[in-house]
Order: sequence, then structure tokens, then C-alpha cells
Amino acid sequence: MPDRRTVFFVSDRTGITAEMLGNSLLSQFDTLDFQRKTIPFVDTPERIDEVLKRIDDTAAAEGRRPLVFSSIVDEAMSILAPLESELGVKSSHAAGRTHGIANAAQYFARMEAINFTQAHDDGASTRDLAKAQVILIGVSRCGKTPTSLYLALQFGILAANFPLTPDDFVDKRLPGSIRHYKDKLFGLTIDPDRLTQIREARRPGSQYASLVNCRYEVREAQLLMQLEGVPALDATSRSIEEIATTIVHRAGLQRQIY
Amino acid sequence: MPDRRTVFFVSDRTGITAEMLGNSLLSQFDTLDFQRKTIPFVDTPERIDEVLKRIDDTAAAEGRRPLVFSSIVDEAMSILAPLESELGVKSSHAAGRTHGIANAAQYFARMEAINFTQAHDDGASTRDLAKAQVILIGVSRCGKTPTSLYLALQFGILAANFPLTPDDFVDKRLPGSIRHYKDKLFGLTIDPDRLTQIREARRPGSQYASLVNCRYEVREAQLLMQLEGVPALDATSRSIEEIATTIVHRAGLQRQIY
Repeated sequence: MPDRRTVFFVSDRTGITAEMLGNSLLSQFDTLDFQRKTIPFVDTPERIDEVLKRIDDTAAAEGRRPLVFSSIVDEAMSILAPLESELGVKSSHAAGRTHGIANAAQYFARMEAINFTQAHDDGASTRDLAKAQVILIGVSRCGKTPTSLYLALQFGILAANFPLTPDDFVDKRLPGSIRHYKDKLFGLTIDPDRLTQIREARRPGSQYASLVNCRYEVREAQLLMQLEGVPALDATSRSIEEIATTIVHRAGLQRQIY
Repeated sequence: MPDRRTVFFVSDRTGITAEMLGNSLLSQFDTLDFQRKTIPFVDTPERIDEVLKRIDDTAAAEGRRPLVFSSIVDEAMSILAPLESELGVKSSHAAGRTHGIANAAQYFARMEAINFTQAHDDGASTRDLAKAQVILIGVSRCGKTPTSLYLALQFGILAANFPLTPDDFVDKRLPGSIRHYKDKLFGLTIDPDRLTQIREARRPGSQYASLVNCRYEVREAQLLMQLEGVPALDATSRSIEEIATTIVHRAGLQRQIY
């Protein structure tokens, strides 16, 4: 592909920050096609020489310069200088401190959240639901599981999730086991066309995946949430990061890890 | 606390990029204490006014200026300009495109990875292990589960994990169900003192958590990995992000999502 531009993310640690920043900027050029290559742990003069050679070789092979996003701390000093002056202390210059040090308290907070969330996925357990910081509800395959895991893994939040099923729509009531935790509930809704597409990938040709059934379930779930006063968010055109962040924001949740 | 400095992360979208960048910089000032506040979805003139007022109020209350990291796209234009000139196209200026649009192919890749990883957590299933891109092995509580979930959620990688138990140490062989996938195995090791601390939190006073037993299990697991030629990584002082990124790098795994 002649229009494919190579992009390098280079870091002396994991490269996560360079990727985040770089991808955020590249998303502004959505008509272009990028070939992304992350090169982490570039932390010796030899590794730096290797990377420079690889970049030069790519430039020669493709006949144009690749883009390079680097979060090597030495180079980041131009950003650190004004911070040093504002904070009145010198920075530690330690390479990539962010993702590098495992803080014990944060480790335990994260593990507790992951264990809790896995144990309370898809209504698997109703024990200790009182400990949940949030309980996501919604129809099958609307995005509850990845959102719960993201909340646990990235924010250390104890996130349970519970499915709304046709039985609940007949009763027109919240399932008994979550009815007493109404202040912890947060609903996810989804466009029926999208839902049918997702369910078809899982159970092709089933009644469960049919558009008629998806329309019914989504409508009834939305009615139930309205009736019970449960705040809800449309997950259809949002990434998991965005859904999770929105829930933390709207539900006023306290993140446990940074 | 007089030395606690307030830091705002302000964004017209999720604030994730602003947090990543800001925390990366703040990690260079590890003798200081920061009070972090993320304000996402600042996308109207009214919301901007609200935030400005909040920042001013904080400055007045604390008697010094808070730090503000913003990823609002208008302000980021100074970074975009050189990219526009290098790429020869105008950027789309779309606010926070990165975390905002759910790409269908990436959604399915991520969901497939999450489902696979949950089904193959802690040796729960040995079905379809041939589909795994990586199989993490190690003693109980060494960090296999969070690492697997991170690989699935952030990279879309099909990551299984399998525990090494005292039975395996008696046999001095890999468990039968993973023996045939040796090229997919990646080991996690951990410092016995740290392991005993983690296990004590879960089963206080148990033989399982005792330092003597942790030393035995860790030593035997390391021997087994060496014997079988399984690459291994010490998880003790590394964050989950760093462990996951290192595995992707060392095992040459292909990430499925960006």
C-alpha cells in the first residue's frame, strides 16, 4: 500500500504513554493508513542505535520518513522544565516511573477489584453485592462484562454486573437480588441493530439473536430502567474506555488506582 | 496537608490521554503529594466556564495554583500543526477521536479475547488451547489473572493461564494439558516474600501462605521453567502494564487492537 505510513512508538519503558499520546494525535488524520510499530525498553546506547538504524532503514525502504513518537525521559525534559519551576523541585529523571513501580496498596486494590468483578460477572454471584461500588445492568451482550473488567483493572472499582432477561420484562420489576441496591445500579443500553449483529456472531440464526427479539429486549430494558429510575447510558457508538469513564463520572465513583 | 498539590486533568472526552500524559510527568516528582481530579466531557462553553471557576476557587482556597493537564483538542493544535505539515493533510480536528469511536472489527477482537481469557483463566478450560496466542504459567497468586485480562482487554490477545501446583513439582513435568503447547508458554515468577504477603491477605495463617511453602513453590516452578525452556519474567516489582507489555515484546505477540 503506497499510502501506508510507518509510525514508531519508542520508549525506554513500556511505550504505553507514547502510544496513547501518538494515537490520540494520529486519530486526527483518519483518512490515512498507519502501520504502527512499538519498540519498548530502549534503555541502552546499543538499543538506541538499533532503533535509529531501523528507522533509517524504514525511511530508505519506503522512500519517506516514518513518524516517531518517543517518551524517552531525556527527550521529555523540555516538558518537565516548566513543571520543575512551578513545583519548585527537581524531577527525579527516573525513566518511565509511571508504569514501572508496583505500589503494594494499589496492587491489592486492583486484585480485590478484579476478583470481585470476576466473581460477580453476569449475575454469577449475589453474595457480597453490598460491597459493589457499581452494579451494571442491561440485556445480554450489551457490553456489561468488558466495561466491568475495565472498571476493575484500570480504576480498581468493585464492579458487579447483572443481566436483564425476558423474565424480568414479564414481571416488569428489577430482579429480586439487585432490587435492594438501587442506588448502585447503572444501566447500559444498545441499539437493536448493533445488538443483533453482536448476538449473530455468537449464535447465528437464533431467535435470541433475531432483530425482532433484540428490539423487544432493548425496549423493555429501557422501560424498566426508566420506571425504576436507574441512570442509563447508550453503549452503541462508544468505546469501552469511554463507557467506563462516563460511568465513573456520572455515578460519582471514586477510583482506587492511578 | 499543606504540601498536597491539586492536579486537574481536563478533557472534552474521557480524559484518559490527559491522565496518562500528566501522570507520566508527575511520576518524576515522587517526593510530592498530589490530589488528582479528572474532569471529563468538558465540551460546551458552559462546562468550560464551570471548570475555570473550579480551578480558580481551588487556587484561592489553597493559596497556590493547581496544575492543569488538558487534552482539549483546540489547545492541542500546536502539537498537530507539525504533524499536518509532515503528513501533507489537514487533521480532522475531531475532539478526542481516539477513545470515542467504537470500531466494529476491534470491538469483536476485544470481545473474543475477553471471552477466551475468562474461559481459560486459571486452567478452567483446556478446550481450544490451540487458539491461545500465549499461555501464562506460574504458581498461584503470582499475577497470571490480571496480566491475562490486561492482554485481552488492552491488546485483544487471546491469553490463557494455567497454574503450576505442587503436583507438577513432584512430577517435575509440565501439566499434561499444556505440554503440547510449549511454544506458547510464558512463565511468571515472583519473590517468595512478596508471594507470602499476597497469599496471607487471602488465607491468613495457612500452610499455603507460609514463607516456607512459598519459597518451595517458587523455587520448584523456576526449576521447571528452566528445565522445559519456558521463558520467564519476574513479576515482583513490575506493574501489570509493564508485565503485559514485556510479554508482548518478548514473545513477539501481535496486538489486535489499538
